[in-house]
Order: sequence, then structure tokens, then C-alpha cells
Amino acid sequence: MDNSRTERLDKQFDFFREIDKEKLIERQTYLTGAERRENDAEHAWHMAIMTILLSEYANEKIDVLKTVTMLLIHDLVEIDAGDTYAYDEEGKKTQAVREAKAAERIYGLLPEDQGTKLLALWREFEERRTPEAKFARTMDCIQPLMLNDATEGKSWLEHGIRLSQVLERNANTADGSKEIWDYAREHLIEPNVEKGRLRNDTIFENNLR
Amino acid sequence: MDNSRTERLDKQFDFFREIDKEKLIERQTYLTGAERRENDAEHAWHMAIMTILLSEYANEKIDVLKTVTMLLIHDLVEIDAGDTYAYDEEGKKTQAVREAKAAERIYGLLPEDQGTKLLALWREFEERRTPEAKFARTMDCIQPLMLNDATEGKSWLEHGIRLSQVLERNANTADGSKEIWDYAREHLIEPNVEKGRLRNDTIFENNLR
Repeated sequence: MDNSRTERLDKQFDFFREIDKEKLIERQTYLTGAERRENDAEHAWHMAIMTILLSEYANEKIDVLKTVTMLLIHDLVEIDAGDTYAYDEEGKKTQAVREAKAAERIYGLLPEDQGTKLLALWREFEERRTPEAKFARTMDCIQPLMLNDATEGKSWLEHGIRLSQVLERNANTADGSKEIWDYAREHLIEPNVEKGRLRNDTIFENNLR
Repeated sequence: MDNSRTERLDKQFDFFREIDKEKLIERQTYLTGAERRENDAEHAWHMAIMTILLSEYANEKIDVLKTVTMLLIHDLVEIDAGDTYAYDEEGKKTQAVREAKAAERIYGLLPEDQGTKLLALWREFEERRTPEAKFARTMDCIQPLMLNDATEGKSWLEHGIRLSQVLERNANTADGSKEIWDYAREHLIEPNVEKGRLRNDTIFENNLR
């Protein structure tokens, strides 16, 4: 094998070894059996399969491989920046800066052509403008909703999460798929409000606005 | 939403909740930091990214989305059948039957059109005939090689694995990508033989054949 091929493979394998660390980044959501919390790599794997099987409901036609790739790689920044809980308002203030720096370092381990592509894909996800980015965002919100529902709201209860917070977090979920959002609201959110696992503060919030 | 759409989504979400269990199926390989073993979902996530970035080395042109999908879903059978260690000769005798039964149950949770497709894709992976199945198999062998190398052969040493076993396990790795196999042999296997992390029995084995 010539030297340039070996150097290219060396960079690719350096990246693969580095991203192994994503498996140790814990999220707030619990697995369906509620035995332990989920990690970022598991979350990405789950969403990739969901995307392949749910793309039929996308509002706009999506490139499935592009969307899957986006979801598989978008949380790698957390290797440096850590997981910022969806309802951690303090953490979210510095999140963008921390993650942008991480993206440059981590995707920068790859050969330049591939690193540039992944960095662009990560930015596309963050900007939420393209059909793929919108659908990926829908998956990123729906997957933890599903796990929260399956664990009787364990993570919501631990953090005392209110319905208004969930609705705010999901303000753009219908942008990727109106149909999935309708289903999620009816099957994954409302029953949990009725059962008291999500604090029902919507009337209060509505008056406030 | 009409009833048939809701029923379809119900089946899809039942499948998504069921496959969450793959995150609890432990493999023999350790994560790069050697803190704990890897699970099937993490393994699949890792291989999916590797496929996207290494498809350029495939012997034959591959459909990347098809290969990624194959890798994301191929270990779901282990939810029922358990993980069979690559060097567990007893377990491997009953593996095919156990896994075929599991495949029918698990993919069968999906709406029929999608279940049929995933079952066919799983079989295609098992048969190792198409370019996608061959490349997926290459990833399935290379990813744990990489982790074993990164953890100074921890799992090999625990099980007293011999070089001949690794070579036999990798008998078809070059079928997906000769270039990746050459790289792996030189960078992920040979250095570990030299360092005594893999028992060097090739001369003995060669005489025996």
C-alpha cells in the first residue's frame, strides 16, 4: 500500500478510535427497562433506524442516507463539550460556542475532504433549515419522548419537567413531520400529562404570554 | 389521523421500543478506554459511521445506505438469541437456528412491508454474497479488531485467543475490501502478535492443515 493511502487510513482510524468515547457520554433519558441511562452512541443508533423506517412521514422528501449520517455524527461534539440537558437553561447559554470548537477538533481528525463534509453536515443539522436537518431534529426530539413515555416519565419526574417545557423543546418537531408530531402529542405526551408524570402548566403559561 | 395510519405508527413504535433492548446486549470487546465492554447498539453505531467513511475502499461499488441499514439492524436477533462470541465454537452450532427464529419475531413487529424488507436484508447479510453483505461483514470483523488493538488485546488475552483463530474469523474480511484487510493485518493484528497479545500458533496450524 502506498504511503498516502496508509496516511489516509491512519487518519480515518484515529477518528474511529476517538469517537469511541461517545459511548461514555450519558444522557438524561432512561432505557425502556429504566435500568440505566442511555448514552449518545445508543441514542444515535436508535434514531438512525427510526429515520430509515419513518422517512415516509417527512413533510418534504428527504435524502435518507444524508439524514442518517447527520444523526450518527451530530453528537460527537459532546466528547469535548459534554451533554447539555434539553432543559438546562444555564448550560444552553454556552453550548453553541463549546460545541463549535469541539466540532472543529473532532471532525478535523479525518482526511480534509471528509472532515470538511462532516463539519458542514453538523452545521446543517444545527441550522435546521434543510428538509434533512428538520427531519433529523424531529427524530432527536421524538426518540427521548418515546423513552420517557416508556419509562413512565422517570426522567421528567426526576427533573420536575413541566408540559410547557416539553412543548417549547418540541416547537420545531412538526417542521420535520407533522404526522409524527401529531402522533407523538397524542400517544407520548398527553397520556403522561393525564397520569401526572408531566406537570400540566399550560394554562398558566398561556396566560403569561 | 385515520386509523390505518395510527395502526402503522403503533407497529413502528412497538418495534422501536422493542429494539431498545439491544443496548443491553454485551459483547466481549472492550471500549477503547477498557472501562467496560461494548454493547450491540454501540457496535452497530460505530460500524455505520465506519461504513460511510470507508466505502471508498470497497472491492465492488456498494450502496452505502443499504450497507448501513444492514449493519444497524443485523444484531437485533441477539435480543432473543443472545450474543455468540466469535470464538465460542459450542455456541456457534445452534446460533443459526436461534437467530432465524428471533429474526422472524422481531422484524415481524413492523408493518408487513417493512418487516419483510428488514428480514430479507438480515438474510442477505448472513449469506455474504452481495457486495453490501461482504462489505458489512468486513466492518463487523474490523471494528472489534480495532478495539482489541486499542485495548492492548484485553479481550484476546482474557480468552487466550490465538492468531490462527483471528485469521480464521477473518477469512472473508478481504472479500469486502482487500485494502482494509491489508491495513488491518499490518496495523491491528501483526503488532499484537509481536507484543504477545495474540498467541502466535500459525506455524503449528499451517503444518496441521
